[in-house]
Amino acid sequence: MSSGTAKRRGRRPGGQDTREALLGAAREVFAEHGYDAATVRAIAARAGVDAAMVNHWFGGKDGLFTAAVQLPVNPAEFLPRALDGSREEVGARLVRAFLEAWDSAGGGGLAATLRSVASHDSATRMLREFVSAVVLGRVVEAVGVVDRAHLRASLCGSQLIGLGVMRYVVGLEPLASADRDALSAVVGPTIQHYLTGDLAEFPQHGG
Amino acid sequence: MSSGTAKRRGRRPGGQDTREALLGAAREVFAEHGYDAATVRAIAARAGVDAAMVNHWFGGKDGLFTAAVQLPVNPAEFLPRALDGSREEVGARLVRAFLEAWDSAGGGGLAATLRSVASHDSATRMLREFVSAVVLGRVVEAVGVVDRAHLRASLCGSQLIGLGVMRYVVGLEPLASADRDALSAVVGPTIQHYLTGDLAEFPQHGG
Repeated sequence: MSSGTAKRRGRRPGGQDTREALLGAAREVFAEHGYDAATVRAIAARAGVDAAMVNHWFGGKDGLFTAAVQLPVNPAEFLPRALDGSREEVGARLVRAFLEAWDSAGGGGLAATLRSVASHDSATRMLREFVSAVVLGRVVEAVGVVDRAHLRASLCGSQLIGLGVMRYVVGLEPLASADRDALSAVVGPTIQHYLTGDLAEFPQHGG
Repeated sequence: MSSGTAKRRGRRPGGQDTREALLGAAREVFAEHGYDAATVRAIAARAGVDAAMVNHWFGGKDGLFTAAVQLPVNPAEFLPRALDGSREEVGARLVRAFLEAWDSAGGGGLAATLRSVASHDSATRMLREFVSAVVLGRVVEAVGVVDRAHLRASLCGSQLIGLGVMRYVVGLEPLASADRDALSAVVGPTIQHYLTGDLAEFPQHGG
């Protein structure tokens, strides 16, 4: 039925115009409903194409989101291999995977993302939901974190994004030129501590 | 002599136009020479006012820099009280002081700074030098860090800036709403570890 709609509009199903239509529809639907509530079905319907085209072109909702907000790194691609392995070394693997992904994306990638996030409220909201639900959610699930999972995950996120800002945006040495092994060795224990260590008490209110 | 120059240009020494002239001259001279090499004397000369006006209006070079680049937080104001006290708790004090300063500056302050840094190469370079020389330099000096001081200081900077990005720009919970006591308690040990702990080996080259 949806592909019938596409044909009526003169689109070749599976063609480049389908991809562009999905990107446009995704930006609208993600902005209207947020990451979680936006469905692949609703986005495909808005674009007038079959929902299977989302998998065909973007590999799923995550990939469509990262393409729609022009996020140069798709966490769905690097997270699985970082999370696969011993729980005791997941911190170092996450640091390495984060750096591999952003190193490949080139230095300007994170700066562009930050410009967008710091400038547009809708981009901020979408990215926040995405980071919280998809990225950090998967990490705590895979590592089996139950105690204060949101706090632990968001602390990890804060250290990783800060490392990225210093390395790629501010260009602060030695972080800017250090190799990934070295950075994984010194920052990995922090991520490991946040995920599995003994955090201080974290009162809801206190001063 | 310099105030004579100011009078010849029709400025009231110490007046608001002196302040504006200093800000304009500071932006030019900092951009041309970088933070370290730019001197108060050269900036005052460019503005055609007496160098004493820098202290009068901005309390010194740091204050002039933060005003010129519209940095909403002047580290010279919060660093001394964070660094004053026991070496064993300097991490938590630094987190608290960082949050106090940016909490007071309002939520938009860090977003505006990041937009500027992510958009302009000259702003990036000036801020990098300032952070490296003034902020982190004072921390390692006060704490008495000698072993890999630049690495330790820049790791602290990465955790603090990442905490700021998540709290003020992305708005990720629970970091966005957590009180300062709570955040100092959970992030303080990380800063303490980076400054005084046993870091992993940090090879210059390795993979």
